[in-house]
Amino acid sequence: MSEELRSLLWTGSSLRVLDQLLLPSEMEWIDCTTYKDVYSVIKNMNIRGAPAIGVAAAYGMALAAREALTAPQPARFVLDAADYLKSARPTAVNLAWAVDRSLADGAPSLGKDPRAVADELAAFAGRLAQDDEDQNLALSKHGADLFEDGDSILTICNTGALATYRYGTAFGAINEAFRQGKRIQVIALETRPYLQGARLTALELVKAGIPFHLITDGMAGFVMSHGMVTKVIVGADRIASNGDFANKIGTYQLAVLSQYHGLPFYTAAPLSSFDFSIASGADIPVEQRDESEVLSFAGHRVAAEGARAFNPSFDVTPNQLLSGIVTERGVFRHPFGNWERP
Amino acid sequence: MSEELRSLLWTGSSLRVLDQLLLPSEMEWIDCTTYKDVYSVIKNMNIRGAPAIGVAAAYGMALAAREALTAPQPARFVLDAADYLKSARPTAVNLAWAVDRSLADGAPSLGKDPRAVADELAAFAGRLAQDDEDQNLALSKHGADLFEDGDSILTICNTGALATYRYGTAFGAINEAFRQGKRIQVIALETRPYLQGARLTALELVKAGIPFHLITDGMAGFVMSHGMVTKVIVGADRIASNGDFANKIGTYQLAVLSQYHGLPFYTAAPLSSFDFSIASGADIPVEQRDESEVLSFAGHRVAAEGARAFNPSFDVTPNQLLSGIVTERGVFRHPFGNWERP
Repeated sequence: MSEELRSLLWTGSSLRVLDQLLLPSEMEWIDCTTYKDVYSVIKNMNIRGAPAIGVAAAYGMALAAREALTAPQPARFVLDAADYLKSARPTAVNLAWAVDRSLADGAPSLGKDPRAVADELAAFAGRLAQDDEDQNLALSKHGADLFEDGDSILTICNTGALATYRYGTAFGAINEAFRQGKRIQVIALETRPYLQGARLTALELVKAGIPFHLITDGMAGFVMSHGMVTKVIVGADRIASNGDFANKIGTYQLAVLSQYHGLPFYTAAPLSSFDFSIASGADIPVEQRDESEVLSFAGHRVAAEGARAFNPSFDVTPNQLLSGIVTERGVFRHPFGNWERP
Repeated sequence: MSEELRSLLWTGSSLRVLDQLLLPSEMEWIDCTTYKDVYSVIKNMNIRGAPAIGVAAAYGMALAAREALTAPQPARFVLDAADYLKSARPTAVNLAWAVDRSLADGAPSLGKDPRAVADELAAFAGRLAQDDEDQNLALSKHGADLFEDGDSILTICNTGALATYRYGTAFGAINEAFRQGKRIQVIALETRPYLQGARLTALELVKAGIPFHLITDGMAGFVMSHGMVTKVIVGADRIASNGDFANKIGTYQLAVLSQYHGLPFYTAAPLSSFDFSIASGADIPVEQRDESEVLSFAGHRVAAEGARAFNPSFDVTPNQLLSGIVTERGVFRHPFGNWERP
């Protein structure tokens, strides 16, 4: 009955990426054979979602190490590829983390044995993908424990299989609760400007058979004030040491609205989305994307000619507004700070 | 430099309505020669905005009274037309109010002198239009006093000339402040699902020469928390005796977010938008529109097949979240209840 969606597949010689810009109407795969192909699909958001971007970037490094075999300076080629890949999207910590970890794994052979580097980077990407799958499954089971019969769960953006290597984070928790037989329903925000909720989460909910309604981003307060929501769970692109976190634009105001309406508000992310090098959300850079995304809707220009727009892609939610952080180790609650065990 | 937009014009024999569904890319006028034409343009939202709907409905009654001259039972024809017109949109109090006031003006002649009814209803519609213009100008001047150099004013939906017979309400106040030389700027919410902000308010801002940025509805919390907003002003479709008011979906959560960020939050509407027959917002019926508006845009399906949606067109904001109500009599503040003078 339910059908699994996948964001990417490694063929052994190329990375196949499901083109999320064409979803839900078309299912087209993009075949990436070079690290620059991988940069492009991340930059253009054919693939998105912090964990999926991390795995894609690791495979991008594996492709770079293979391309380096025919380059005049293989080590330089790999290091340049790393910088280039990291520049594709600035907010998601998983991207830089995956590239740096990939380099660290290849470092002993770098400048000595390009073939070994190529093998090591391909092996690392495979392990990262498997880790993401394992972590998300564990995280989803912990998250599912938060839900019970009768819950109506509000969520934003897309945090399912399409945003990760497999299973998803916030969506994984919802899906696992439903799979366990809990009678839950979902309210999904359409999530302008990219409409990840309408295009991707709705598709994942349909495929999973979970009852749901879509709403526009301006309807969140309405459904909360009318008792139509019992819990809120969202993903995270980067979590600071104190629990502040960056996520899709609109998350912060959902957190404020949840507090006002007395609703539990959770984020779900693997520990790889934590950035322990930063103390608080104030240190998280927020990506500003092109204003054309706001001035247009689903590819059609909607705003009057001459209009300008702001387009921050993420916002930062302070930990004070969070009821808990769902990870593969369990659900962390206040006071945040000890991340060894919940 | 600035160019005036008009929502409707009476030709003496027909009502010309600017088709707002085609804005901002096309400027097409719809010529309404029967009351059923007027019903259609209100129902289909070719014209929208509570005051504009009220004036259009009054002209619809004028057309009905003229059509009644050749009907077997002229009085019955006019009364049926009144019921029909009132059913076009349930939330805007101006619609039912304009139709009922129109009938009251024609009542002495109804069933006796159809020609006199036709004349009286046409004259009433003309007075209503002139009253709307006068009230909006007075209201805009009171509202402009709320703003000062350096203000960055956030607004939702469209409340300008396109939403009224002339000048606008919340937008009228912003425009008047700018016209007075105050150095202000605007942040306009795009206002899904109908995108009145992106399509209409952005057009009015461009025509007026007021500096502004458009944002998606999920970015309101972000701009507030980043100090990019100093005041919020919105319109109102219906105001209850206690100051609770209905307005475009998304208004309620803006009010909650404004309170959280310590920002003044105003609504602006003429006293004709007050419904003194209801005690509080709990008595305001909220129009639920077709879910296809959320699932699609401009005939372009965006949500996955199988998705369902909620589509409340309005929400109700409790008066506790309001800093003031701008009317043609001045700005009312807490405690609300004496509506004779601010």
